[in-house]
Amino acid sequence: MIGPTDLRIQTLGEGHFASPLTLGHARGDLHGDFVSDADRIRYQVELLADEPERNDLFFERAGPRNSLFFNPKESRAAIVTCGGLCPGLNNVIRSVYYCLTYNYGVPEVFGVPYGYRGFNPANGGLIRLTHELVENIHLQGGTFLGSSRGPENIDIILETLTREKINLLFCVGGDGTLRGAHVIAEAAAERGLPIAVVGIPKTIDNDISYVWRSFGYATAVEKAREVLFCAHAEAKGAPNGITVVKLMGRDAGFIAAGATTASQEVNFCLIPEVPFDLEPPNGLLAHLEKRVLDRGHAVIAIAEGAGQNFFTNQPQIQDASGNVKQHDIGFFLRDRIVSHFANRGLTANVKYIDPSYIIRSVPANCDDSQVCDRFARVAVHAALAGKTDLLIGLWHGMLVHVPISLSSTRKKRISPKSNLWLSVLQATGQPVAMLNRGASNLDLE
Amino acid sequence: MIGPTDLRIQTLGEGHFASPLTLGHARGDLHGDFVSDADRIRYQVELLADEPERNDLFFERAGPRNSLFFNPKESRAAIVTCGGLCPGLNNVIRSVYYCLTYNYGVPEVFGVPYGYRGFNPANGGLIRLTHELVENIHLQGGTFLGSSRGPENIDIILETLTREKINLLFCVGGDGTLRGAHVIAEAAAERGLPIAVVGIPKTIDNDISYVWRSFGYATAVEKAREVLFCAHAEAKGAPNGITVVKLMGRDAGFIAAGATTASQEVNFCLIPEVPFDLEPPNGLLAHLEKRVLDRGHAVIAIAEGAGQNFFTNQPQIQDASGNVKQHDIGFFLRDRIVSHFANRGLTANVKYIDPSYIIRSVPANCDDSQVCDRFARVAVHAALAGKTDLLIGLWHGMLVHVPISLSSTRKKRISPKSNLWLSVLQATGQPVAMLNRGASNLDLE
Amino acid sequence: MIGPTDLRIQTLGEGHFASPLTLGHARGDLHGDFVSDADRIRYQVELLADEPERNDLFFERAGPRNSLFFNPKESRAAIVTCGGLCPGLNNVIRSVYYCLTYNYGVPEVFGVPYGYRGFNPANGGLIRLTHELVENIHLQGGTFLGSSRGPENIDIILETLTREKINLLFCVGGDGTLRGAHVIAEAAAERGLPIAVVGIPKTIDNDISYVWRSFGYATAVEKAREVLFCAHAEAKGAPNGITVVKLMGRDAGFIAAGATTASQEVNFCLIPEVPFDLEPPNGLLAHLEKRVLDRGHAVIAIAEGAGQNFFTNQPQIQDASGNVKQHDIGFFLRDRIVSHFANRGLTANVKYIDPSYIIRSVPANCDDSQVCDRFARVAVHAALAGKTDLLIGLWHGMLVHVPISLSSTRKKRISPKSNLWLSVLQATGQPVAMLNRGASNLDLE
Amino acid sequence: MIGPTDLRIQTLGEGHFASPLTLGHARGDLHGDFVSDADRIRYQVELLADEPERNDLFFERAGPRNSLFFNPKESRAAIVTCGGLCPGLNNVIRSVYYCLTYNYGVPEVFGVPYGYRGFNPANGGLIRLTHELVENIHLQGGTFLGSSRGPENIDIILETLTREKINLLFCVGGDGTLRGAHVIAEAAAERGLPIAVVGIPKTIDNDISYVWRSFGYATAVEKAREVLFCAHAEAKGAPNGITVVKLMGRDAGFIAAGATTASQEVNFCLIPEVPFDLEPPNGLLAHLEKRVLDRGHAVIAIAEGAGQNFFTNQPQIQDASGNVKQHDIGFFLRDRIVSHFANRGLTANVKYIDPSYIIRSVPANCDDSQVCDRFARVAVHAALAGKTDLLIGLWHGMLVHVPISLSSTRKKRISPKSNLWLSVLQATGQPVAMLNRGASNLDLE
Repeated sequence: MIGPTDLRIQTLGEGHFASPLTLGHARGDLHGDFVSDADRIRYQVELLADEPERNDLFFERAGPRNSLFFNPKESRAAIVTCGGLCPGLNNVIRSVYYCLTYNYGVPEVFGVPYGYRGFNPANGGLIRLTHELVENIHLQGGTFLGSSRGPENIDIILETLTREKINLLFCVGGDGTLRGAHVIAEAAAERGLPIAVVGIPKTIDNDISYVWRSFGYATAVEKAREVLFCAHAEAKGAPNGITVVKLMGRDAGFIAAGATTASQEVNFCLIPEVPFDLEPPNGLLAHLEKRVLDRGHAVIAIAEGAGQNFFTNQPQIQDASGNVKQHDIGFFLRDRIVSHFANRGLTANVKYIDPSYIIRSVPANCDDSQVCDRFARVAVHAALAGKTDLLIGLWHGMLVHVPISLSSTRKKRISPKSNLWLSVLQATGQPVAMLNRGASNLDLE
Repeated sequence: MIGPTDLRIQTLGEGHFASPLTLGHARGDLHGDFVSDADRIRYQVELLADEPERNDLFFERAGPRNSLFFNPKESRAAIVTCGGLCPGLNNVIRSVYYCLTYNYGVPEVFGVPYGYRGFNPANGGLIRLTHELVENIHLQGGTFLGSSRGPENIDIILETLTREKINLLFCVGGDGTLRGAHVIAEAAAERGLPIAVVGIPKTIDNDISYVWRSFGYATAVEKAREVLFCAHAEAKGAPNGITVVKLMGRDAGFIAAGATTASQEVNFCLIPEVPFDLEPPNGLLAHLEKRVLDRGHAVIAIAEGAGQNFFTNQPQIQDASGNVKQHDIGFFLRDRIVSHFANRGLTANVKYIDPSYIIRSVPANCDDSQVCDRFARVAVHAALAGKTDLLIGLWHGMLVHVPISLSSTRKKRISPKSNLWLSVLQATGQPVAMLNRGASNLDLE
Repeated sequence: MIGPTDLRIQTLGEGHFASPLTLGHARGDLHGDFVSDADRIRYQVELLADEPERNDLFFERAGPRNSLFFNPKESRAAIVTCGGLCPGLNNVIRSVYYCLTYNYGVPEVFGVPYGYRGFNPANGGLIRLTHELVENIHLQGGTFLGSSRGPENIDIILETLTREKINLLFCVGGDGTLRGAHVIAEAAAERGLPIAVVGIPKTIDNDISYVWRSFGYATAVEKAREVLFCAHAEAKGAPNGITVVKLMGRDAGFIAAGATTASQEVNFCLIPEVPFDLEPPNGLLAHLEKRVLDRGHAVIAIAEGAGQNFFTNQPQIQDASGNVKQHDIGFFLRDRIVSHFANRGLTANVKYIDPSYIIRSVPANCDDSQVCDRFARVAVHAALAGKTDLLIGLWHGMLVHVPISLSSTRKKRISPKSNLWLSVLQATGQPVAMLNRGASNLDLE
Repeated sequence: MIGPTDLRIQTLGEGHFASPLTLGHARGDLHGDFVSDADRIRYQVELLADEPERNDLFFERAGPRNSLFFNPKESRAAIVTCGGLCPGLNNVIRSVYYCLTYNYGVPEVFGVPYGYRGFNPANGGLIRLTHELVENIHLQGGTFLGSSRGPENIDIILETLTREKINLLFCVGGDGTLRGAHVIAEAAAERGLPIAVVGIPKTIDNDISYVWRSFGYATAVEKAREVLFCAHAEAKGAPNGITVVKLMGRDAGFIAAGATTASQEVNFCLIPEVPFDLEPPNGLLAHLEKRVLDRGHAVIAIAEGAGQNFFTNQPQIQDASGNVKQHDIGFFLRDRIVSHFANRGLTANVKYIDPSYIIRSVPANCDDSQVCDRFARVAVHAALAGKTDLLIGLWHGMLVHVPISLSSTRKKRISPKSNLWLSVLQATGQPVAMLNRGASNLDLE
C-alpha cells in the first residue's frame, strides 16, 4: 500500500530565478496563475459505500512556478522519443520546443535521433531544433526525431549530456523509457550533475499508472472505431458474416473497450483484464454461434493481450524493450471460429483485421493535440523549476507530478467494476462472464 | 455558498424491483458493478495553498442501482430534445432507447417532436420509437426528433404524460430546457404523479455548471480547429492577412479557448471572461498591428459573447428561449480592424469567418460518442431508480447526479487562473491583459 | 480486333410509352435533355503519331430516352449486389431506388439478399424496398442488401423473376456478376421473357474494360493514400525503416498507382502489369538497399497481383467466384527484404501493412457518391427504354452503353506507356525497369 | 467559331537537348513514354444526332518530350500563384519543384511571393526554394508563396526575370492571371527573350475553358457537400426548417451542382446558367412553400453568381483583379424567404450559411492531389520543351496544351443539357424551369 512519501517529488534545489512568464505579476487578479508547490490534488475522489477512505494522499500539482531553479537563458535542453509510434509525438516535441524557446527564452533545444541510442555519438549527433524544422510537424504522424526500443549505455548518455551542457532532459516514452529516465536521473544525482529529467508518458495502450488518459489514446480509439465500422460493414455484407478485429492492448484493453463504446457496433469485446473460455457450455464460441444464428452477423473486438492463457504451453520471447512478446490471439481466434462453424456444419464468413500500424502512425486528433500541448508545457515548467525524476500525470482531470518510481510499479488496467467496462457490457450485450469455471474460482484482476 | 443539502438528490421512493441488468449477481467479484446510493464523489479535489478546503460536500455517484423504483416491464418513457443543435443529440436518443429497450426491457419509448411544443397534441403526436428508426441516427448530425426553443404550457405537458402513461421523462437541453424539466418535476410532484424527470445537459458552449465537459463540445472544438486552420491559410495567403473567426460561446469561451490550444495557430483569443480594450496604448488593435508588421499575418478567434461591453449603448433583444440576443462582435471587430489599418495607411487583407451552423450540426465525433452513450445510460439508470429533478453531471471525470436547481443557479465559465486559459496564453503569446485601465480596476469574473 | 457490331446494344423492342421525366417537353431550349439512340461517343480520342486511327467505332450514349419500352407504372424492378464489398454499393442501391420511384413512378422495387443466391426462395425471399429503408444507407459502407460470391441456378432465378413479375433487373458486380447477368439476359430472351438486364460495373480494382473509372475506386485510393502516409511515418520513425503496403489489385495496379501519385510518399510501386526481379544486379532488393542506405527509410506499395511469377512452382486454387486465388506477395516480399538485409549485415526495421478490408468497406467518398448516382440513374434510363444485356460504361468521361459480352472479353490494365504510370515513375524515382533480363526479352503486356 | 489554327501551340524553337528522363531509351517497349508533338487529342468526342461533326480540330497532347529546347542543367525557373486561395496550390508548387529538381536536374527554382507583385523588388525578393521548404507544404491549405490579385508592371516583371536569368516561368491562377501570363509571354517574345511561360489553370469555380476539371474543384465539392449535410441537419432540426447555402460560383454553378449531386440532400439548386423567378405562380417561393408544407423542411444551394438579375438597378463595382463584384444573393434570398413565409402567416426557421473561406483554404483532397501532380509535371515538360504562351488543359480526360489566348476568350459554364445538370434535376426533383415568362422567351446560355 502506498504512503504519502511515495508521492513526494524530487527537486534539484531552491528556485533562484524569477520566471520570465508574463503571468499577472503586476495585476493582482491574475497572480494566481503561477502554481505553488503547496498546491495539491487529492489522491482519492470516489468514496465507495464499503471502502475506507485514504485521506492522507495527495499529488503535487503541475504548472508554472514563480521561481525557477535554472536560469532559462543559460539552459540547454534535449528531447528524446522512444518505443513504438503513438499519435501526438510530434505535437509534444513541438510544444516542448515552443514553450522552451518562446515562453522561457531557452536558447538551445536539441533532438536526440532514434531514441536513447541517439545519445551515442556513433549513431550520429544530436539535432539542433529550429522553428522551421518543427513548425508543421504536428500535421504528420510518427516522430520527427525517429524512435527506437532498448536502452543505451548510461555512461555514454551522461557524457553526451555533459559535453552538450544539457540541463533539461525530456524523455517521451512508455514503461521502459521511463525506467531509463529514472536511471539517468539517479546517475546524474550520484555524479552531482544538475540535470532535470522529466518523463512525458507515452502509451497508446493508455496503461501507465496515475495517467488518467495518455496522449495518443483518443486518436487510437478514433481510428479503431473507424475500423470497427468497417468490420460491421463486412460482417453485415455476407451471410453469417463474422469479423474479428485485433486491437492494441498488451496488458490493458482500453483501446478495445473505448472503441467498442464509441462505435456501438461490437458484439463481443475481449480484453486481458477479463478472462474468457472458448468452449461450451459458457465459452465465447457458444455465445457467438447463438448471436450469428439469431442476427446473421457479429463483430468481435479483441485486445492483443487477451486470451494469452490459451498459449500457456508455448515458449516466451522478448522484444528489444524487454517486453514479453505476445502470442497472436487474432489468428488463433479466427481459426478457432472457422473450425467451430465448420464442425457444426454452419456457414460462416470470417474476416480478420489487424489495423495496428494504421492506428498508431496517424497525426494526433483534436483532443490529443490539446493533451499533448498541456503535457509538454507542464513538463517544461517542472524541469525549469528544478524538479526531476518525475513523470507528468493526469489525475481527476488535473495535471500532476508523479515520481517515476511510483508509476512504474504497476500498470493501469481496466477494472471490471468501472464505468468503462459497464458501458462495454451494455453496448455489446455480451455476458458478464464467458467462463465454464464456477464463480468461486473467478479471480478477476 | 452552497451547502451539503444543495447536493441532495430527490427520489420518488424506495426501490422495490430487482434490476434486470445481469451484473454479477451470481459472481461475487463482479457484484460491485451496481452503484450504491451511498457512493459519493468529492466536491473538491484541488487543494490550493491559500484556500480553505470544503470537506463536507459530495455528489451522489451515477450508475445502475440494484433496486428499482419502477418496474421496467410496465414503464413507458419519453425523450425530448430542445434548443439549438448540438453534436451527439442523436447518440443520446439512441442510447437512451437502447438502454431502456435492450438492457431494461421497457416496452414503450416515445420521442417528443420538435421540443416541448411536441407535447401539445395540436402539434401532432408523440413518435413511437423502434429499432429501425433509431438504428443509424448517430451517423447523422442534428436531432432525429427535431427541436425548438421556448416552453410549453405545463398543464398540457402533464396531460400528455398522463394520457400516454409515461413515467420516465428525459429532457435533453440547456439552461432553459433544464428549468423546464424542473417545472415539470415539481408540478408532477405536486399532483402526486410518479414521474421521474431526468435532465441530460446539452450545451455546445460547455457552460453548464457541474458538467466538466458536455457532449458536443469535443466535436465543436474539432470543427472549430479545422476552421482555424483555414483561417491561418487565409491569413498567410495574402499580404498582411488577418482572419477573424467568430466562434460560439455566449457566456463562456470554452470553444474558442479549446480550439486555440488544439490548433496552435491563433494569435489572439478573445472570450467573454476576459475583458479587453481596442484602442492604444494597450488595446487589441495596437498589439495586432505590431504582430502583423512583425510576422505578416494574424489569426483572431473571438467568442460571440466577448466584447459585448462595446455595445452598451444599444438596446437588448431576447430570443424564444429567453436568452438575451448578443450583438454581433464579429462584424464589429472586423470593421474596426479594417478602419484601424486604413487610418494608419497600412495594407491589411481582413477576412471574416462565422462557422456556427457548420460546427453544431455535424455528427458527434468519437470522443463525444462515448460521452453521449454514458450520459444517456446513467440517465436511464437514475430514472428507473426513481430519482427525479436531477441532471447528469460530470465531476472530476466521474458521472454524478446534480439537482437541477443547483446547476441552474450559475453558468460555468473559464477561470483566467485555469490550466485552460494558461494554455491559451502560452499558445497565442498574447498579453495577459489588453486593457488601458489600471490593474486595480480589473475585475475578472 | 473489335468491329462496329461489337459495340451494338441489344433492345427488347420499340419505345411505346412517353417518359414521365419532366425534361423540357414544353420548353424548346431544354428539349435536348433526352438522349437520342443516335447519339454516339467516339471510341478513339487520342491519335498517336505512329498509330492508325479507328474511325468506325462508336459507343451508344447513355441517358434518359423520350420513349420507353416499359410502362413505368406497371413495372417491377429488382437489384442485386454480388462479390466483395466496394465503397458506393449503398449509393447505387439508393439512387436506383430513388430514380425508379420518384423520377419514373415505378411502384415496386425489390432487393435481392446476399447476391444471386437471394433469388433462391430457400435463402429467404426478396426484400421490398421503401424510402425509410434506403434513405440513409449511403452514409454507411458495405451493402445494405448483403452480397455473396458465386452463381445461382438460372432456372431458379428466372422462376423468381417470373413469379415476382420483375421486368427490370439491375446487377451490380464485377466480371463474374456481369457474366451472370449476361446468362440471365440470354436465358430470358430464349424464353421470350421481356426482362431488361442492366449491369452496373463494380470493381474496386478499376479493371473493367470500357469503364474509365468505376465507383469505389476514388474512395479506395483515398483510403490507400491514408495508409501510405502511415507507412511513411512508420518508415521514418525507425532506423532504416522499411514499410511494405499490400494494396488491392489482382490483375491491375490502379489502386497502388493512384495512391502512389496521390501520396507522393512511395519509393517503389509494384504492379502486375510491370514485372520485376528481386535479385542483383538490377532487381528490387539492390535498389531498395541503396535507397535505404542513402535516405534512411523507404516505402513500398505492392498490388496483390504483382510478382505472382515468384510462385510459379506452387499449386493454383480458386475462390467461390472462380477467380484464381493469388499467392500472398506481401508476406513473401516482407520476408525476402528481412533476409536480404540480415544477410548483408544491415539494420532494417521492416513493417508490413495489409489494409484491404479497411479500404473496401468504408462509405463512398464525395467523388464516388457522384459517380454512383450517375451510373445508377442511367442504368434505370436504359432498362426502362428496353435495353438489355448491357453494362454502364464510362468513356472519355461520357456515360455509355457497353454490351456485356464485349466488356468481359478482357480486363482493363495499366499501360506502362500511360500518363498514370509515368506519374508513378516520376513520383517514386524508381527505375523504369528492375529486371536482370535483357531488354529484348521484356514483354510488357 | 474556332478553327484549327486557334489550337496551335507556340514554341521558342527546336529541341536540341536530350531529355534526362529515364524513359525507356534502352528498352524498346517502353520507348513510347515520351510524347510526340504529333500526338493529338480530338476536340470532339460526342456526336449528337442532330449536330454536325468538327473533324478538323485537335489539341496537342501534353507530356514529356524527348528533345528539349532548354538545357535543364542551365535553366532557372520561377513559380507564381495569384488570385484567391484554391485547394492544391501547394501541391502544384511542390510538384513543379520536385519535377524540375529531381526529374530534370534544374539547379535553381524560385518562388515569387504574393502573386505578380512579388516580381517587384520593392515588395521583397524572390524566394529560393529548397527541399526542406517545400517537403510538407501539400499537407496544408493555402499557398506557401502567398498570393494577391492584380497585375504588376510588365517592365518590372521582365527586368526581374532577366536579372535572375529565369527562362522557365509557371503562372498558377485564373483568368486574370492567365491574361497576365499571356502579356509576359508576348512581351518576352517581342524583346527576344527566350522565356517559356506556362499557365497552370487555377479556378475553384471550375470555369476555365478546355479544362474539364481544374484542381481544387473536387476538394471544394467535398467541403461543400459536408456543409450541405449540415444544412440538411439544420433544416430537419426545426419546424419548417429552411437552410440556404451560398456556394462559390461567379459565372458557373459547378460547385453547387456537384455538391448537390454528391450530397443528394438539396431540394433547390440555383446556378447562374439557369435563370429563375421568385414570385408566383411559377417562381421559387411558391415551389419552396409547397415543399416545406409537404415535407417540413428544405435545403437550397445557391451559387453566388445566380440571380444577379434581381440587382439590375444597382451599381457595379470591381475587385482588384478587375472582376465585377457580385451582389450578395445569399442574404437577399434569405430575406425574401423570411418575408414570404411571414406574409403568408407560415412558420419558417430560416438559416443561412456562407462557407466560402472554409471551402477554399483546406488542403487538396486525394483526387485533387493527383490532378495537381499531373498538371504540374506536364507544365514542366512543356516549358523545358520550349513551348510557351500556353495553358495546361484537360480534355476528354487527357492532358493537353491550350493556347492561353484561346482559353481566355470565354468561360466554361454548365449546359442545362448536360449530364451534370440532369443529375441535379433528378436529385432535387426541382422543376426544370421556375420562370413566369413564356417558354419562347427563355434564353438559356
